[in-house]
Amino acid sequence: MNLLLLNQDDFVSSSIAIIRDARRCEHINKIQQAKIGDSLKVGLLNGLMGRAIIVQMKTDTDYEIHLQCELTTSPPTALPLTLVMALPRPKMFRRVLQTLSSLGVKSVYFIHSYRVEKSYWQSPFLNTEDVQHQLILGLEQSCDTVLPTVHFKNRFKPFVEDELPEIIKNKTALVAHPYTETPCPVSFNQPLVLAIGPEGGFIPYEIDLLNQQGFAAVHLGERILRVETALPFLVGRLFG
Amino acid sequence: MNLLLLNQDDFVSSSIAIIRDARRCEHINKIQQAKIGDSLKVGLLNGLMGRAIIVQMKTDTDYEIHLQCELTTSPPTALPLTLVMALPRPKMFRRVLQTLSSLGVKSVYFIHSYRVEKSYWQSPFLNTEDVQHQLILGLEQSCDTVLPTVHFKNRFKPFVEDELPEIIKNKTALVAHPYTETPCPVSFNQPLVLAIGPEGGFIPYEIDLLNQQGFAAVHLGERILRVETALPFLVGRLFG
Repeated sequence: MNLLLLNQDDFVSSSIAIIRDARRCEHINKIQQAKIGDSLKVGLLNGLMGRAIIVQMKTDTDYEIHLQCELTTSPPTALPLTLVMALPRPKMFRRVLQTLSSLGVKSVYFIHSYRVEKSYWQSPFLNTEDVQHQLILGLEQSCDTVLPTVHFKNRFKPFVEDELPEIIKNKTALVAHPYTETPCPVSFNQPLVLAIGPEGGFIPYEIDLLNQQGFAAVHLGERILRVETALPFLVGRLFG
Repeated sequence: MNLLLLNQDDFVSSSIAIIRDARRCEHINKIQQAKIGDSLKVGLLNGLMGRAIIVQMKTDTDYEIHLQCELTTSPPTALPLTLVMALPRPKMFRRVLQTLSSLGVKSVYFIHSYRVEKSYWQSPFLNTEDVQHQLILGLEQSCDTVLPTVHFKNRFKPFVEDELPEIIKNKTALVAHPYTETPCPVSFNQPLVLAIGPEGGFIPYEIDLLNQQGFAAVHLGERILRVETALPFLVGRLFG
């Protein structure tokens, strides 16, 4: 946690926040070993960032930490990137959420695809609370406050044909695909919709359907990368 | 496993390999559900890649799979990159090994640094066999055969002063560091030694020492990334 993320609910006045939950309090108390008078890097969820002074601290039975906050800095610029990703297997899904959140991605559609196992859609990790928790861990890691928006689309064709055209409007659309000649562009830095397939890739039918909607296939090099490696690799290459 | 990696020991003649270990045999039998006559993508560790036909297959009590191999293709080009990384915490260390191996890194020095906990050096994950296993998982993922060389240097100053000058000779040397004005170059594609600090970064004294040896500090943007995210991000940006 490189940034302590506060919610609007934590604030009891315009500048005083009180936190009581074990996760954040223990981090301050045990990991950071902070004391009254110490200054912490903080941010308001979907708001500004700044510093907070610990003005009261109860750590015996129940936690209670009072913070005097001064929030004046804007969060880092969002990536101009919308991700369209085949739903990864549950364990990787959680890591991917943290990763994309830490990279500054603000919009992601998890979609079904032929090589996505149907059981992945039943995972408890897909519930709103768990998703938000993983995204917040990513923001706390990277020092950002703006929560990404996550959509789930469990039918490939209706999503690609009926919803994608609106999503890619006025944007470039690329799909990462190993079996193509065109390399992924470098320092693209323009509004972009990027589709990433499942382990094993999109099937030809799916690539065709994406092509028809205006997606150009690009490859990442000779090596086949796991989704959680391909994602930061692509962001590092496209936005720099 | 996108490539079945064979050892010289598996070969009983110039083209016939027999594998008996559960890990590889079960992958062929249960995951790939391959049968006699099927063709698999294979590679010889530190050698060529190609295809193998399953010519015999025993899957009842003990496994035994006979493969007729034709190895004619060179593995992907190695990255012209030497990594110098602060030793990550054990769990992340294993993932980092897989990640760097899948990215095509062929030389890495894990080093001590002020913010590396001493206990990390006692981790059982540092033993040669476990390290090699993680590296092989990375090669099998990415379809490569060339095993990276891994060095451990548990004293920062002697390594930086006495060994690094030889390692960076005729190469560019960069250190990823959040507190600098210079952004990381894009599509560098030249022989490079890249130093990556621990969670929390190198301390100023360490940065100074690296600077004295010729390392230039570069940043990755406004966000602080975990090592396992920063690594593919940097490779994607530097080599494309």
